[in-house]
Amino acid sequence: MEFKAKDIATFLNGEVIGDEEIKVTGVSKIEDGKEGTLAFLANPKYESYLYSSDASVILINKQFELKKEVSATLIKVDDAYQAFAALLDLYLQAKAGLKTGVEQPSYINESAVVKEGVYIGAFAYIGKNAEIGENVKIYPQVYVGDNVVVGDNTVLYAGSKIYDDCIIGNGCIIHSGAVIGADGFGFAPQDNGEYKKIAQIGNVVLEDDVEIGANTTVDCGTMGSTIIRKGVKLDNLIQVAHNCEIGKNTVIAALAGLAGTTKIGQNCQIGGQVGFAGHLAVGNNVKIGPQSGISKNIKDGRVVLGAPAVDLKEAIKINIVFRNLPALREDVIQLQKEIKEIKQTEKD
Amino acid sequence: MEFKAKDIATFLNGEVIGDEEIKVTGVSKIEDGKEGTLAFLANPKYESYLYSSDASVILINKQFELKKEVSATLIKVDDAYQAFAALLDLYLQAKAGLKTGVEQPSYINESAVVKEGVYIGAFAYIGKNAEIGENVKIYPQVYVGDNVVVGDNTVLYAGSKIYDDCIIGNGCIIHSGAVIGADGFGFAPQDNGEYKKIAQIGNVVLEDDVEIGANTTVDCGTMGSTIIRKGVKLDNLIQVAHNCEIGKNTVIAALAGLAGTTKIGQNCQIGGQVGFAGHLAVGNNVKIGPQSGISKNIKDGRVVLGAPAVDLKEAIKINIVFRNLPALREDVIQLQKEIKEIKQTEKD
Amino acid sequence: MEFKAKDIATFLNGEVIGDEEIKVTGVSKIEDGKEGTLAFLANPKYESYLYSSDASVILINKQFELKKEVSATLIKVDDAYQAFAALLDLYLQAKAGLKTGVEQPSYINESAVVKEGVYIGAFAYIGKNAEIGENVKIYPQVYVGDNVVVGDNTVLYAGSKIYDDCIIGNGCIIHSGAVIGADGFGFAPQDNGEYKKIAQIGNVVLEDDVEIGANTTVDCGTMGSTIIRKGVKLDNLIQVAHNCEIGKNTVIAALAGLAGTTKIGQNCQIGGQVGFAGHLAVGNNVKIGPQSGISKNIKDGRVVLGAPAVDLKEAIKINIVFRNLPALREDVIQLQKEIKEIKQTEKD
Repeated sequence: MEFKAKDIATFLNGEVIGDEEIKVTGVSKIEDGKEGTLAFLANPKYESYLYSSDASVILINKQFELKKEVSATLIKVDDAYQAFAALLDLYLQAKAGLKTGVEQPSYINESAVVKEGVYIGAFAYIGKNAEIGENVKIYPQVYVGDNVVVGDNTVLYAGSKIYDDCIIGNGCIIHSGAVIGADGFGFAPQDNGEYKKIAQIGNVVLEDDVEIGANTTVDCGTMGSTIIRKGVKLDNLIQVAHNCEIGKNTVIAALAGLAGTTKIGQNCQIGGQVGFAGHLAVGNNVKIGPQSGISKNIKDGRVVLGAPAVDLKEAIKINIVFRNLPALREDVIQLQKEIKEIKQTEKD
Repeated sequence: MEFKAKDIATFLNGEVIGDEEIKVTGVSKIEDGKEGTLAFLANPKYESYLYSSDASVILINKQFELKKEVSATLIKVDDAYQAFAALLDLYLQAKAGLKTGVEQPSYINESAVVKEGVYIGAFAYIGKNAEIGENVKIYPQVYVGDNVVVGDNTVLYAGSKIYDDCIIGNGCIIHSGAVIGADGFGFAPQDNGEYKKIAQIGNVVLEDDVEIGANTTVDCGTMGSTIIRKGVKLDNLIQVAHNCEIGKNTVIAALAGLAGTTKIGQNCQIGGQVGFAGHLAVGNNVKIGPQSGISKNIKDGRVVLGAPAVDLKEAIKINIVFRNLPALREDVIQLQKEIKEIKQTEKD
Repeated sequence: MEFKAKDIATFLNGEVIGDEEIKVTGVSKIEDGKEGTLAFLANPKYESYLYSSDASVILINKQFELKKEVSATLIKVDDAYQAFAALLDLYLQAKAGLKTGVEQPSYINESAVVKEGVYIGAFAYIGKNAEIGENVKIYPQVYVGDNVVVGDNTVLYAGSKIYDDCIIGNGCIIHSGAVIGADGFGFAPQDNGEYKKIAQIGNVVLEDDVEIGANTTVDCGTMGSTIIRKGVKLDNLIQVAHNCEIGKNTVIAALAGLAGTTKIGQNCQIGGQVGFAGHLAVGNNVKIGPQSGISKNIKDGRVVLGAPAVDLKEAIKINIVFRNLPALREDVIQLQKEIKEIKQTEKD
């Protein structure tokens, strides 16, 4: 895609200083700006790059005063960062808009319902009675099982897999390799040491605006649903076990894992590689540092760290002593010596 | 699928109290029972839901005595939980039985042998000389490499990948995104700092009744086999490196990782996010708590926790002192003061 | 494939002792050698197997002196291990060479450029303007997005996924389920607690000779590139976040995770399940033990362990005290008693 400086300025309600007809085909950071791209200057720390950047067009704040001559064409806007973000959103929408129609070969079961504006890539599979909402983008090699519902404007990237009966909301993004609705890890131990599989007949419900990272797995409920509430963002390679529930607008970083039936509240921030035991209740607005181990319930608003996790301030104190354990041991040995001497003195 | 109360009762050898002709199309938990579904009451704690549930049919124990009127149709059986589990198994078998035949387009190399009763989904790939046993279900987008053998009644879910030469037993279940037989992580360091790949020419052998979770990876042996014994259950996102061996009926939770050539015994229970160094021998009936780090061999029957792992009781004791390290430090500082005073007194 | 002893000897410049015409179709370890396979003896520890092995052909060192009669055909070479490794490389090259041509159905956009000697498996997808180099092997169900460049001799195993605009060097190997170029985990918190997605418009650059393990994920740059330098080897199930950079010949074990914009130097060795915070700088030749937590920059050449990580020697000292914390606590309690007694004595 190609855009002229004057068209960008019109969209942003900005003013062009320089060549109105110059074209850009991509974006770059101002510090490594390339010809034919658009960059922005928001942070004054980067001002020097304004005068040296090879970017063809640079967005700057209206108030900004040039100290030298600039070779790039400038567009003055109210807020250069916001304007740049708006352009990116427009660019991605335009790009996504190009993906439409059904590529062949693909498999759409005759009982499936597919609405308007949909893209279905080659080798994608849509099962029985599945419902695909408006403007949904289903990339190549995606698997949508029987009875799955996919809400409007949702994007399923290449090779993501949705098992039977799952429900995906509007505006969700599911990245490649993510698996939604595989069996929960439930087995009944038998007297002979074998495990008998417990049928996993529930599903997964993703509410609206959920993003699921690459190769993340969300298991179905044993019965009932594993529920990911509106606006939740999961990073890559996360495990969410059967019957978990993750509250609205909670974000979880990569490689974290939740055991079965654990519930996490709203607006929580969970670090990478954190592990949760099963059947826990974690409150709202909780923050958990990376690599923590959570084996107990956590109340609203707490900030915790460590394995097992304690309040952050306490964790920091513990850690200071921990790092100095050899010195502490020496102190104790020294005390033992001194007391021995004192006792000896007393005896004498 | 749709079942009448009287047909369910016949199958379960139970007695219908209410409308014999009422139909159910699914199941639900008694506490959130929905019309048209079947639920069960086993735990007396949930008795109140019996009188309020909207489930159309509820299984109860023969001995159970009603305290109020119930609007649902009841089926009295010897053991409501067992009966429910039996129904679920029947339901899943019936559902699986519906998947049969070969969907198009799919790729089955002409040298492959495919037995009776098999389902092969669209976009599945069966390589040269592969052997697919009876009643195997191969979902869409599965990859079965050259010379792979898949035993009877095994299920390969959508998008699972089996590299060349691997052997999958009877009655196994491999979930979406699992990768069986990728190259082990073996490289020979060169003088110039580069790594030369060591050819990985072994395979993976899964014995019967193994379940492999979504996006779990089991690498092939460098030479020889990586072996997962009968009845092993692996959760999601687990890494099993080259030439490992996991003993019969051992279960491992999500995000655990085994380095190369480590052997784990039978009937072990391994928690989530546990890490094993390479070349270890872990005995039978060992239990390992979550997030543990295993760097030494473990004898039969031990229960360990921590990184590095120690016996569970010891780990708990250590943890109590650990959580109180700042207080211990204070105690030592206090002791130092007191001894200084004592010494001063002695001098005076 | 089938090889005669005399042809193997010719290739290795070795001497046959026994049946020149005997054929082998595979390889085995000498300790579990099977008829029809080739094994080698390099380590004298395994000498006894030489006399009992069922392998049909065994490579031995020229200097080696037989102590008993051997039933296998022997090939004497300068260095049996090197010879065996050379044979394996030859075998794998021969095997790879058999994979060529384009299987149907596959999807190659008409604007894509595909060079000579390429294998494209069934259900593989090659997007717009993609460039596929010479002798590249693209296995079934691989996804290559728009504008992706894949260098010569690279192998993309079944079901690996490359998002738009990524650049893959020469001689790379990407295993099944790996996802290259998914969106970075970037969201702007809003006043109402929701998160607004920050457009992720960068890409991933893999330089030459990079190997990416099964189900590993490398996110694209938010802007600019996530860069994996020449010769880097990543194991399975690793997370590399947006805008990270991993230096030449660095190797990382399974289940490790890097948060955004962290840079790791050259020739580092990183253990399994290690976690890195974001925006860090790790030097060259750094070694990090498994399960470590890295929250600070690390200088060249350091060897660290622990969470948070400290120098290995210090970590070992800390760990010794840590494992004996209950005894240390007892020592302190004992000291408290003794001081109390001393004070009491003084008072009296």
